[in-house]
Amino acid sequence: MGYKVIKEKVLRANADTAKLIKERLDSAGTLMINIISSPGAGKTAFLEKIGPRLKEAGITLTILAGDCFTCRDAERLDKAGLEVIQINTGNACHIDASLIDKAISQVDIEKNDLIIVENVGNLVCPAEFELGEDMKIAFLNVAEGSDKAIKYPLLIKESPLALINKVDLTQMSDFDMAFCKECIRQVNRNIDIIEMSVKTGQGLDEALNWLVDKVKIKKEKAS
Amino acid sequence: MGYKVIKEKVLRANADTAKLIKERLDSAGTLMINIISSPGAGKTAFLEKIGPRLKEAGITLTILAGDCFTCRDAERLDKAGLEVIQINTGNACHIDASLIDKAISQVDIEKNDLIIVENVGNLVCPAEFELGEDMKIAFLNVAEGSDKAIKYPLLIKESPLALINKVDLTQMSDFDMAFCKECIRQVNRNIDIIEMSVKTGQGLDEALNWLVDKVKIKKEKAS
Repeated sequence: MGYKVIKEKVLRANADTAKLIKERLDSAGTLMINIISSPGAGKTAFLEKIGPRLKEAGITLTILAGDCFTCRDAERLDKAGLEVIQINTGNACHIDASLIDKAISQVDIEKNDLIIVENVGNLVCPAEFELGEDMKIAFLNVAEGSDKAIKYPLLIKESPLALINKVDLTQMSDFDMAFCKECIRQVNRNIDIIEMSVKTGQGLDEALNWLVDKVKIKKEKAS
Repeated sequence: MGYKVIKEKVLRANADTAKLIKERLDSAGTLMINIISSPGAGKTAFLEKIGPRLKEAGITLTILAGDCFTCRDAERLDKAGLEVIQINTGNACHIDASLIDKAISQVDIEKNDLIIVENVGNLVCPAEFELGEDMKIAFLNVAEGSDKAIKYPLLIKESPLALINKVDLTQMSDFDMAFCKECIRQVNRNIDIIEMSVKTGQGLDEALNWLVDKVKIKKEKAS
């Protein structure tokens, strides 16, 4: 059996589990988003800031923090007063649906408006594994350069939102925002793009509004 | 068949191919290094600068540039006057030994002192797939934060050298060099560490000397 055939089988089994998760979330009206980025793009720092603001906006949320090893992210998010479950994948490069299934068995889905999956830092495999989420969010950053969208197109293709973090580093790097956006739009014409700096706070209001809006839409659909 | 069993099978078949590649390289006295990093860490920029200097030092080299999609890296390296073969993996998150086998069939191994694999930008899977290389190089960078070594330990465990690029961004970020090194040493006590900025040139001499030394040792072993 070739690698491709094996992979298709694995992805199919994963999709079946993901579908069941999606059905449970749909009937509860709970939105699940799957945030995917390179290592060190600032996902955890983003959640440390946006999590408390989502709570202030009346949204009950739980974060499922994925990492190969360590509980560093979960510890940081816990310190920020957020509900969090750490998912350690070992040497696996992505979270799969069965790991989400196990994690959300510890969560009262009906009481949560929003479940945020912070995936393993990796632009490739996480984009391939459906988790039962409503949407992926492509979490890019200035330090990784302008051309990532065309090098890792699947994630961009699948995401309704691209956050571009670390815009405070633009002057210090060779980053070209116009070219970055051109690359993103080349892969996905309809994607929303928010320029952001978790460090300075730029773009956080916009990101918050985007998320609150999506939570509302999901709730309305379920009721 | 579970995912773990499948993966072990894939890795075993890969290791067999890698062994054959290693034997060919050993008898030719050609060093092969496998550079692994996050997306946008600066591998291509590093090779654009270090490649010509390796040539000046009398070393004949070929670069195998891995990306899921696009030939952007190969085009850049070609412009820098370097011999380069692009390997596109499609949606696969790593280069495997069979892709290297195909690529080096286009290379006169005996005439090359050094083959550099620029792996797909990903800290997880590429570390698992042996390519027949003499060594991996862990290519970290300041922008991704200080704790990557303990979050992605396999790569660090397998590498005799960690390059820490983008040290010019240290002031602008929350990067903690002492903690980063502590994390690296915690995983691998014997690893060499070079602080580097491809942009300013800092550390490039040191990296060059490290590589030239390893090429010499390999040549001497073969003769």
